[in-house]
Amino acid sequence: MEKEIAPIMTEYWEKAKFPFHVIPKLGALHIAGGTIKGYGCPGLSITGNAVATAEVARVDASCSTFILVHSSLAMLTIALCGSEEQKEKYLPSLAQLKTVGCWALTEPEYGSDASALKTTATKVQGGWVLEGQKRWIGNSTFADLLVIFARNTTSNQINGFIVKKDAPGLTATKIENKIGLRMVQNGDILLKRVFVGDEDRLPGVDSFQDTSKILAVSRIMVAWQPIGLSMGVYDMCHRYLKERKQFGAPLAAFQINQQKLVQMLGNIQAMVLVGWRLCKLYENGKMTPGQASLGKSWITLKARETAAIGRELLGGNGILADFLVAKAFCDLEPIYTYEGTYDINSLVTGREVTGFASFKPAALSKRSRL
Amino acid sequence: MEKEIAPIMTEYWEKAKFPFHVIPKLGALHIAGGTIKGYGCPGLSITGNAVATAEVARVDASCSTFILVHSSLAMLTIALCGSEEQKEKYLPSLAQLKTVGCWALTEPEYGSDASALKTTATKVQGGWVLEGQKRWIGNSTFADLLVIFARNTTSNQINGFIVKKDAPGLTATKIENKIGLRMVQNGDILLKRVFVGDEDRLPGVDSFQDTSKILAVSRIMVAWQPIGLSMGVYDMCHRYLKERKQFGAPLAAFQINQQKLVQMLGNIQAMVLVGWRLCKLYENGKMTPGQASLGKSWITLKARETAAIGRELLGGNGILADFLVAKAFCDLEPIYTYEGTYDINSLVTGREVTGFASFKPAALSKRSRL
Amino acid sequence: MEKEIAPIMTEYWEKAKFPFHVIPKLGALHIAGGTIKGYGCPGLSITGNAVATAEVARVDASCSTFILVHSSLAMLTIALCGSEEQKEKYLPSLAQLKTVGCWALTEPEYGSDASALKTTATKVQGGWVLEGQKRWIGNSTFADLLVIFARNTTSNQINGFIVKKDAPGLTATKIENKIGLRMVQNGDILLKRVFVGDEDRLPGVDSFQDTSKILAVSRIMVAWQPIGLSMGVYDMCHRYLKERKQFGAPLAAFQINQQKLVQMLGNIQAMVLVGWRLCKLYENGKMTPGQASLGKSWITLKARETAAIGRELLGGNGILADFLVAKAFCDLEPIYTYEGTYDINSLVTGREVTGFASFKPAALSKRSRL
Amino acid sequence: MEKEIAPIMTEYWEKAKFPFHVIPKLGALHIAGGTIKGYGCPGLSITGNAVATAEVARVDASCSTFILVHSSLAMLTIALCGSEEQKEKYLPSLAQLKTVGCWALTEPEYGSDASALKTTATKVQGGWVLEGQKRWIGNSTFADLLVIFARNTTSNQINGFIVKKDAPGLTATKIENKIGLRMVQNGDILLKRVFVGDEDRLPGVDSFQDTSKILAVSRIMVAWQPIGLSMGVYDMCHRYLKERKQFGAPLAAFQINQQKLVQMLGNIQAMVLVGWRLCKLYENGKMTPGQASLGKSWITLKARETAAIGRELLGGNGILADFLVAKAFCDLEPIYTYEGTYDINSLVTGREVTGFASFKPAALSKRSRL
Repeated sequence: MEKEIAPIMTEYWEKAKFPFHVIPKLGALHIAGGTIKGYGCPGLSITGNAVATAEVARVDASCSTFILVHSSLAMLTIALCGSEEQKEKYLPSLAQLKTVGCWALTEPEYGSDASALKTTATKVQGGWVLEGQKRWIGNSTFADLLVIFARNTTSNQINGFIVKKDAPGLTATKIENKIGLRMVQNGDILLKRVFVGDEDRLPGVDSFQDTSKILAVSRIMVAWQPIGLSMGVYDMCHRYLKERKQFGAPLAAFQINQQKLVQMLGNIQAMVLVGWRLCKLYENGKMTPGQASLGKSWITLKARETAAIGRELLGGNGILADFLVAKAFCDLEPIYTYEGTYDINSLVTGREVTGFASFKPAALSKRSRL
Repeated sequence: MEKEIAPIMTEYWEKAKFPFHVIPKLGALHIAGGTIKGYGCPGLSITGNAVATAEVARVDASCSTFILVHSSLAMLTIALCGSEEQKEKYLPSLAQLKTVGCWALTEPEYGSDASALKTTATKVQGGWVLEGQKRWIGNSTFADLLVIFARNTTSNQINGFIVKKDAPGLTATKIENKIGLRMVQNGDILLKRVFVGDEDRLPGVDSFQDTSKILAVSRIMVAWQPIGLSMGVYDMCHRYLKERKQFGAPLAAFQINQQKLVQMLGNIQAMVLVGWRLCKLYENGKMTPGQASLGKSWITLKARETAAIGRELLGGNGILADFLVAKAFCDLEPIYTYEGTYDINSLVTGREVTGFASFKPAALSKRSRL
Repeated sequence: MEKEIAPIMTEYWEKAKFPFHVIPKLGALHIAGGTIKGYGCPGLSITGNAVATAEVARVDASCSTFILVHSSLAMLTIALCGSEEQKEKYLPSLAQLKTVGCWALTEPEYGSDASALKTTATKVQGGWVLEGQKRWIGNSTFADLLVIFARNTTSNQINGFIVKKDAPGLTATKIENKIGLRMVQNGDILLKRVFVGDEDRLPGVDSFQDTSKILAVSRIMVAWQPIGLSMGVYDMCHRYLKERKQFGAPLAAFQINQQKLVQMLGNIQAMVLVGWRLCKLYENGKMTPGQASLGKSWITLKARETAAIGRELLGGNGILADFLVAKAFCDLEPIYTYEGTYDINSLVTGREVTGFASFKPAALSKRSRL
Repeated sequence: MEKEIAPIMTEYWEKAKFPFHVIPKLGALHIAGGTIKGYGCPGLSITGNAVATAEVARVDASCSTFILVHSSLAMLTIALCGSEEQKEKYLPSLAQLKTVGCWALTEPEYGSDASALKTTATKVQGGWVLEGQKRWIGNSTFADLLVIFARNTTSNQINGFIVKKDAPGLTATKIENKIGLRMVQNGDILLKRVFVGDEDRLPGVDSFQDTSKILAVSRIMVAWQPIGLSMGVYDMCHRYLKERKQFGAPLAAFQINQQKLVQMLGNIQAMVLVGWRLCKLYENGKMTPGQASLGKSWITLKARETAAIGRELLGGNGILADFLVAKAFCDLEPIYTYEGTYDINSLVTGREVTGFASFKPAALSKRSRL
């Protein structure tokens, strides 16, 4: 990451382009596939996968997100919900990043409320016809393989499908003008009577609940992205404060700067520990959805605070992507919001600890007396 | 602004290009020159100038900064420190934005500590020779006229000069990869034996202290930029929350969202009042440097908080520059830092209220016993 | 306040006793009755009344609350909703603080949801019988006159009554162990078949809505309490930092301390302006309930932040009531919560700006799919 | 703690009295002496001692502080810096809480700057004469044994002494009007020619540096107090929100309340992990002073945030010590400040990570040019 990615990332980030030529180098890291065992996958422990995620994000969060979508969403869904044939067919190539995957759940009108998605899958002879729209789908403008969730028009439940890049009726348009993770290509997907053969329906997805075992893992990985980002920000600030002088002294010698640096360090130490604990809970089969949501939301909140301090510590150079901190400051925003916004994750945890679901507001017709 | 600028700003911001074709339209607003009376300038009140600044920033902060540099720094310096001849020669064209100005104080090694600047001005026959570097200078890559501050090699005091775009030895290189105010072209200026005729030395700048009357006004204007920005963010969030639905209800009906919107509103109301009070103090000749610094730093702090809330309220669309909020979120960062960082402005006010200057750290050799 | 109250306040606050001997001195300030004209009342402008409230709170918030309950709640209700006879009978003595009033709306089970109150008023021959409980009623353990709100058992609407101290069936028990406003005597009121003559029913209270014109004024006054408190805290911190030395220098010379002091100053300036704007809106007949709620909630939030900084700036002495700051830090907590908690006031404003009431949670039976 | 202390704590806290009758019960917990091995001490692991500290603080922070001063300061100093005779003579009785200890370092003029303390120890025949003042010394109004630090008038270094309660010339006056830890009796100590025999000089204290090994342990224990406090606050809030109803629903069903509860939970989880990590570092001999300072300061900061949220969640009942949360909110303030204020601990860590000491401000005579 430091040798191959760091030198080029500012340029691609600035242009919002994806550096296709580094895909083989990312493949050579042998981390795609993460915790999956067999099929050419690395079979890392959850903790190992988490640390790898953080280390990639420390240098560049766009690369980290590219891999996360590919590995902890697309590949993991095939590994957990696919048939033996599907695993053998798709995973080895994905594990080497010879092919790239994406994962399409969110729709234009259903973000936080994803379980209400409206894309349909209708059974036809020999397969299914998908119809609908997806939004924000990372990697989708060039992915070879798209895992797509749709509502079975017979059962009214959510099912999962593997769709190929060149499927007739499938188009993915790049979402432009992002302020963060600019190297990641998010797409608006349009599915117009896209046919998927029976062999590409994922047999393990029978309802929305089946996405939760995937999200349990991916949310841990997402939580480690801001950890990595924050470590990168801290390192840069630490170095910058020692090198840059004003008023005849290194910036590191000023009370105000020291206090900010220490606040960053305290946050990061806590973030690492919270992330690590999440891994241990998962490894022991004890992690609840509320714990994953709490980990993701709490860590991203602290990372946002940490990156904002770092941005400030670098002064004018804190607004240039070249110095890494500005880029990380921006990259955190989509991470703060994806895989459950801060608020939605809070309420998932809130439901778990109180027993009350509070996602929906009260009936709108009722007027209060206040 | 809403008709001509709003539709194009996302594109130029994304590309980090300046929309030269809108300069005449900005000129037609008749706000360049701000408070300057005569010479074709609008002669606005401070409050009027401030509100105009906010209204431009409400739609686009890059345009606001372009005008601010041109008007409240370059033109104002000529108006306050120039000779009658200089005013008559330069201001009318600048007031119509037929020519564009910039203002060069900061240097690569002297940002917060600008008064220690190292660029030199050496008296020669018929004029002066400038030698040195400037950094972060807004508009400088294309400005027709550059107000440049340099240290008089005889008196060792800071003097001011008007330099023309095509002066031999002058180069300005665009600073790339900014995360905010991307339409503003900041330059790294190199001055290699640049000759300036005697007629272009500003007679009213005899020392660094003479910059303070300019900064007194410009800091008020800078303080009104985040006010305008925040108003724009609030309006967009208010509209978005009422239009966007999730879980079967408008986002505006959710407790958490309402509380955020109200916090933004409370901040903005306070920011406007603090900004307004600053204008009134100035108009009554009572505004101190510490008050200007407090206004600028407190308002930008609250704007940063407000924009971060707004960014979050828009969810995924909060990371797209198209929806204005993401752009404003990023644009605030350079504003938070320029014309005195939050910390430096705090310490300017701190010095005024305590009587102690605390900019410099203690002598570095002393080790504490703790 | 500084001469008579400041020297004794720590002692009474510590003991949670009320200093009855200062009532005549507080009466001599001639501020009880505030904005009421005639009947021996001072007839202050809203702004004048607000500044007086802040000045009392600057020295001691318990005294300020004692007067606020008496003047801006009890007296104002009689002035706005009482008959001419009631005004002539009660206001002159109250204005001189020869008699003390209190105001009883909140009940043990109905705090934020006060409009659902359960105390009943049943019409009987020659008057009414009140039955129920009230909680948190300031001054109630010794007040001569209690304004009590109860639900008319015939109309099911809220009515208001003047009850005398010695009314049979009325008991008020002091609430012990408060951490703030310890001099204020809050009571739990028990009403066991308390008879009130027809002449003591307030004719102007026909429904809960009629309390809103009183709360409109009192909420402004409540908003000025944290302003006064914060000014007192700032003054003490400013003085302390200049006097106290550590490491061979006044605390005021340290960067970190200066920055905190300046943040306090910025907050206070904004709080004063927001409070002042509220007065001007009210004086022009334009203040909405949402604006009053926003003023109260935003100002108390900033005061809480300000007092916490002040508490910290005083180090060890910041935990002693003697130094005023610790006392103010604690006194802010009840103020943050009374006359509408921060959250409830936020949602009142939220309803006004969005058009959606969000006080109640969604129906509890519905389980989300998330 | 829950059976014997919880029922009485509100009363003693309110009265600012110490419940002497519970000392034997606290002794029976067998935690005094903490990590000390032998001499009748429990010989707990650091982690065990930390958890015990948190569990006591969860119920009552005053009791926790009473034990901490006695055990992790007074007893530990004897254990680490005392002679074998001193250990045998004093520790067994202290371990059973048959005698009570205190620890006197801070002076009226030397708090954060304690190493500059002015109390003197002058060698005389057969012993030493102590002269000076100490401030804030917990337990000192009734302690049987006082560990006192004084400056050796010959070496000019700090030495340590064991002084007995009835030593002629020793007086300790209770500091009144505290807002937090009200059961803890802090004293102002006056030493007027107090004689200490040679046998009561602690041989292991030859300089101020020798206090650091004690503070290393005690700072870990102090860090676990806010952890315990916060856990107690969370439990109470969780219960309260489920039991208390407003607007026809349990408070736990409201979005705003759930989000606050979840934020508390996230903080607490992180605090526990940071505290635990500190113990592990210490147990492996790797804990640096900067890490202890970071743990203490970061944890107390988060606890302050957590308790303030809890205070708010309880509404009116959040200002009554009876409901535990208000008491904890106040008790945190002295903890936030003692054993190094938040700021001082930040700067200790800051020095360690930057290599620059920034405790002292710059020379006061220098005026900045800004």
